[in-house]
Parts: sequence; C-alpha cells; structure tokens
Amino acid sequence: MSTVVLPDDQVHRGHHARIVLLVLDGLGGLPHPDHGKTELEFAKTPNLDGLADRSSLGVLDPVGRGITAGSGPGHLSLFGYDPTEYVIGRGALSALGVGIELQQGDLAARLNLATFDSEGRVTDRRAGRPSDEEGRRVVAILNERLEQPEDHTITLTHEKEHRVVLLIRGEGLGADLTDTDPLEHGVPDLRCEATAPGSDLSASLVQDFLKQSREILSDEPKLNGFLARGFAAFERIPTVEERFGLRAVACAKYPMYRGVASLVGMEVPSIPGSAEETVALYEKHGPDFDFSFIHFKDTDTRGHDGDFDGKVAAIEEVDALLPRVLATEPDVLIVTGDHSTPALYMEHSWHAVPVLLSSRWARPTGGGFGESSCRRGDLGRFYGTELISIALAHAGRLVKFGA
Amino acid sequence: MSTVVLPDDQVHRGHHARIVLLVLDGLGGLPHPDHGKTELEFAKTPNLDGLADRSSLGVLDPVGRGITAGSGPGHLSLFGYDPTEYVIGRGALSALGVGIELQQGDLAARLNLATFDSEGRVTDRRAGRPSDEEGRRVVAILNERLEQPEDHTITLTHEKEHRVVLLIRGEGLGADLTDTDPLEHGVPDLRCEATAPGSDLSASLVQDFLKQSREILSDEPKLNGFLARGFAAFERIPTVEERFGLRAVACAKYPMYRGVASLVGMEVPSIPGSAEETVALYEKHGPDFDFSFIHFKDTDTRGHDGDFDGKVAAIEEVDALLPRVLATEPDVLIVTGDHSTPALYMEHSWHAVPVLLSSRWARPTGGGFGESSCRRGDLGRFYGTELISIALAHAGRLVKFGA
Repeated sequence: MSTVVLPDDQVHRGHHARIVLLVLDGLGGLPHPDHGKTELEFAKTPNLDGLADRSSLGVLDPVGRGITAGSGPGHLSLFGYDPTEYVIGRGALSALGVGIELQQGDLAARLNLATFDSEGRVTDRRAGRPSDEEGRRVVAILNERLEQPEDHTITLTHEKEHRVVLLIRGEGLGADLTDTDPLEHGVPDLRCEATAPGSDLSASLVQDFLKQSREILSDEPKLNGFLARGFAAFERIPTVEERFGLRAVACAKYPMYRGVASLVGMEVPSIPGSAEETVALYEKHGPDFDFSFIHFKDTDTRGHDGDFDGKVAAIEEVDALLPRVLATEPDVLIVTGDHSTPALYMEHSWHAVPVLLSSRWARPTGGGFGESSCRRGDLGRFYGTELISIALAHAGRLVKFGA
Repeated sequence: MSTVVLPDDQVHRGHHARIVLLVLDGLGGLPHPDHGKTELEFAKTPNLDGLADRSSLGVLDPVGRGITAGSGPGHLSLFGYDPTEYVIGRGALSALGVGIELQQGDLAARLNLATFDSEGRVTDRRAGRPSDEEGRRVVAILNERLEQPEDHTITLTHEKEHRVVLLIRGEGLGADLTDTDPLEHGVPDLRCEATAPGSDLSASLVQDFLKQSREILSDEPKLNGFLARGFAAFERIPTVEERFGLRAVACAKYPMYRGVASLVGMEVPSIPGSAEETVALYEKHGPDFDFSFIHFKDTDTRGHDGDFDGKVAAIEEVDALLPRVLATEPDVLIVTGDHSTPALYMEHSWHAVPVLLSSRWARPTGGGFGESSCRRGDLGRFYGTELISIALAHAGRLVKFGA
C-alpha cells in the first residue's frame, strides 16, 4: 500500500488559504474565420499557457445555457450569487457604477437631463446629448441649491452626457414607482406615481425633487429638467464574509465592477488607472485578504469594438502581468471572464467562458489556455455560481459533507 | 487593427432570424460489436458531416440522466417544455397520437376492446388482439349507434388492434377517475369511480358509455366491450408563440408528432406521406415561420426492429435530403433526436442524444456528426429543455440578462 504524502503544513488545507480571482472581462470569444482561433487562442500568452498546463480547466455558463449575461449578473455569478435570485435594479447598478456606496433602503433612479419648453412639454429627451462638462455643471448647481426634504437626503451624481443618477436616502422608501419619461417629444413628462402603498412617500419626494429641479434650472435653455426611470431600492445582500468566510478585496479600474464588489462586501481600497496599477494595487493589498478580485476591462471593450487584434493585445497585456500575481503565491488562482464578448459578435454573448483554476490539487489536462483546451478540461462545464465552491474546496475552506 | 466584418444587415441579430429543428426520431445509438460504430457513425452522411464541421456540437439528455424518454416527453423537451412539469396524460397523448385535435377540458382515455362472457366476466383483456380491420369495424358501429349524452359528445377513434381512444367533450369533466381494467381474467370489470368531487359527472358518463357499448356489441362473440384506463383531462398549455415569440410549423408524417406539435401551438399544414414529402412540405411553409419542426420517424422504427442497417439507411435518406433544407438558408439549423433508440437495444433508451447546431455564431470542433464528435463538442452535455434557449440565443432572439 502506498500512502499519499500529505502536505507538511496545514495552510493549504486549513482556512487561511488565499484565493485570487482574475477576471478578464468578456474573455470568451469566437474563432476568427481566417485561422479558426479565438482571441484567447490566437494571443501569445506564455504565462497563462504555462499556468494552464499546471491547472484544472473548464468552461462556465454565467447564468444559464443560451443566456447572455450583463456585467452585473456575470460578476455576481462568479462571486457565488445566483443572479436570478439577487436581481439588482438598474437604478442601483447605475449608482454603483458611478461609485456611490449604497446603503440598505436607499432609493436610486436613472435620470436623463432633458429639454422642456415653456409649456412643460418635453422637446428633447436627452437635452441634445450635452458634453460631460455641461452635464457636470448643471448637476453641481442642483446639488448646491436643492432644498433637502426634512428626513431624507437627495444626491445627484453625473454619470455621462445626459445621464445622471438620483439617490434618495432615508427611511421608508419603497421603489414601486412609475417612470416619468413619456418616451416621445411634444408632450409633458408623466407623473411619478406609487404602484404599491409602501412607495407613496417615495413618489411624493421624487415629484417634489423633479419640480424643484425645473425651477432651479428654469433659466437654462437646454438642460432644464429631468426624466426619471428605473427606480430601485437597494437591499443589502449577505456578504462573501457572511456566506463564505472570506474577507475580500477588489482591484478594479472601472466603477461598475467596484460597485458590484462592494455590494457583496468586498473592500475597495483605491482606484487604479491602468491594468498595471490594478496589479500593483493587488500586490499591495491582496496578501492581507482571503479573496482578491482583480478586474481587467479592456478585453470586453475591444470585443465590443469588433477589434479582434485589440482584444488579443489586451489578453497579452494581462499575460505579461501574470508573473507578478504568481509571485504573491496565491493558494488558488482562477483566471476567467464574466461572460463572452467575441470580437466577431461585438456584444456580450451566451457562449461558455473558459476557466483556469490553479492549485496544488489541480488535475491538469494540458493544451494551454483557450476555449478548446478548457472544453476538454477536468472541471467540465458548470454554472458560474458553482465556481465559488470549487474555489473554496481547492482552498481547503469547505468541510466534508456528511461523515 | 483588423476589424472583423460585421453582418451587413441585422436580420441575424434581430428577431426575424429563423430556426429549423430537424428531428431524427430515436437518433442516438450504440456501437455495433463488429466495428464499434453507432448507426449515425456508420452511416455515410457527407452532408451532415460537412454541416457538423461548421456547427457547435453537443449531447443532450431529453429528461434527465438515466431517464428513457417517451416520444411525447422527448419532443416537449426539445420544444422547451419541461416534461416533468407539463405532464400530458396517456389518454391525451393517445388522442393526440391518433390525430384528434384536443380542446381545453376534453376528457380522454385509452380503451381496450375486450371479450366478456354472458356473466359479465372478462375472458380476454385484449379481445384476442383483433386485426386493425376488425377493430375499426366495431368502432364504426359504436360511433354510429351510441346515444350521445345531453350536453356532451363522445367519440371513439380506433388506434391499433385492440386499442381505441375515448374522447368526451363538454363542460365540467374532471379526470380523477379509476381504471376499469381488472388486470386479470375471469372477473368482472371494475366500476369507473371518481376519486375527487369534480369528476363525478365524468364517472357517470363513462359508466353509461361502457354499459351502452356492451349492449350495442352484445351480439359480437369477441369484441363485445371495453376496459378503460389512463383518464386525462386536456389542459391547454402556453404556446411557443406565447413563451418564445415563435410562430411555428410542424412537418411530420405521423399523427403523434403532429399532435405534440399542435399541443404547443405549432401549425400543422398537411400530412406528408414520406421523408421526401416531409421536406417538400417544409420547403413550402417553413420560410414563412420563425420555427420549423421537421420530423423523420424511420430511424426510430428501424431501431425498434433491431435493424442496424435499416437505421443506417434511414439516416442516409435524411442526409440526402439535407441539401434541400440548407438551400432554404435557415439562420439556425439544429439536427438531433428526441431520445435514443439503439438498434442493439431495440427500444427507447436513456443514452444521450447527439446534437448539431449550425449558425454563424457556432464554435466548430470538427469530427463529423456522430456520438463521439458530439461528446467533444462546444455545447457540452445539457438537458433537452435547454436547447430552446441556445437556439433562441443563436437566432438573436434573447435579450441580455441584466446590465
């Protein structure tokens, strides 16, 4: 009988093992008609390929077969939250997206800056798509001059062009509210009305706010009012620490991803300005946390652009940074995406996403890191929400099920 | 930077993209002991192989691992209806199988023609397995001479040999009824009794019908009564148009498959007499519909016969017709089966069924069309009910999940 040699210390099987989740946004691709390789397969990625050959490989469906995941649901899934159960409203996502730290019970909505004529009719639902500078100027005026309601606070945050996020904070704010956007020109905006009893207060606060804004902006020729839609109450959800015992940190350049991370209780130390700074931020903080989420956006952006070579370059940029992540010696390192954004499709798609999981307990199958090798990998095909238990298992953070 | 060429029109990503589901009944097989190839792998199928090499491949379980699907559940699953949720009673399936257009609230049951002695005891539960001709003769007599109840209509349809379908149409017909088959000889048949209050009327109508039939057939030596079982009330289920926005058409030679298709709201234009006529019917109507279901039966029949070569020939017949389907340029073309019927097993089996999905967004993996190549395909292994979302995704008919 040969007895398998056990690890000589318990760190890898105890509960201090450290997990790193490295997300290349929109990683999954489609084969290029000229050579039949996907972006990931075409990219020169010696570091990822070498790591893959020591890793368990697989492919994941973020939400379900045939379902194209948005970025919010895609990340929730990777963090172990069923996105069909934890549905985050558009208003709340926008608020998270501009970096607002939402609190339980906050009411958020998406606002459009719009142009109204002297009769109160909407003449341009997007106020002529103002520059960011113009948008910010008007939002600053309002934040200064708005008269706050007695028991609530109203904050506006400029998002982009005509898009602004409304946040109302305080007690008793239901979100069962109708939109005020009439969706056509030449007619007045609609009243914001409560569609359930718990939202009457919200409706009246929103109406007062919209009326005040019109008064304050009455001298503006173009940016002189708002249309509101996508109301959402923010409900606190259990954190990754509460659910999985993981103290977690997020290293991400873009606000949307920091937002989703903070939603599940990750700490967000500061804002990196590039892929390199993102890794530097991880190097500084990651070793102090049980779980590190590192996010790279450019793969998705280049996919949306239909820029196959650009996506290849974005993957290669991450590959070049990988040795710095490896040098921190995470016990479990996962490299994957939140969904596919094939350059050929120029949009998020439903195609399964390649996954690499490196750990001393891996079952390598070789072939480098690509859709084809991952399809043949030991992890098989699984749902995004299952990733966290596989990661916890490899980190020795799960107890045996039953005796 | 090379930008991938985009679709020059939006039809492939808009909601006009057209889906064709080509079902070879009982397609999945088992390897022949002489050469190790399944029926599909042994068949000469240059057209299917060529298509497969441009397609995403996979294997599906119609109902679940290890579950052998009947034809009804197998097809419901392919159409996106969970067969464990949409349970179609045996009586209703039999009614659909003989081409009866069921309506909401119809009560259906399976009848056996049986032989009763002068004391009312069952002496042959299948009436000596009469010929179809004999069966039809007796059913015609009954349909002519049965006295119809005041507010309901009773129709008998001969199915095969001793098997007959009973249909009662009208208001208030519960189906919680006991069978009358005593399951042994030399004893009287059982009374049909209601097991729930809403079925009292049904029980009394069924008892009257059974009594009348015995009187009308009292001079027949062998076919002189019925045993009834498998009562089912037909409940309308949501159509594929209601659920998936698909206007659908079914091209199928056999009544059972037209029945299941009409159950989910597909149109059934006319009845083809052969595989060739089935394709011709598709050519005529398919291009006007969002979804076309084309059904070929012989693969299953030859499998039941244990006729390996016959099943191979049936597959090759479909292969030869494939170019005519391709010539109609469907946006998404799926080729699969509703279950496996291996010639070696001579029955439906639980083995996974190969699937081919052709679309411009496919991830081909090569190897032609067979169980082995499909097992290695990009679609992996999935449940039959998931096929519809994959198909809708490839047809650009699904919106993104979340932002």
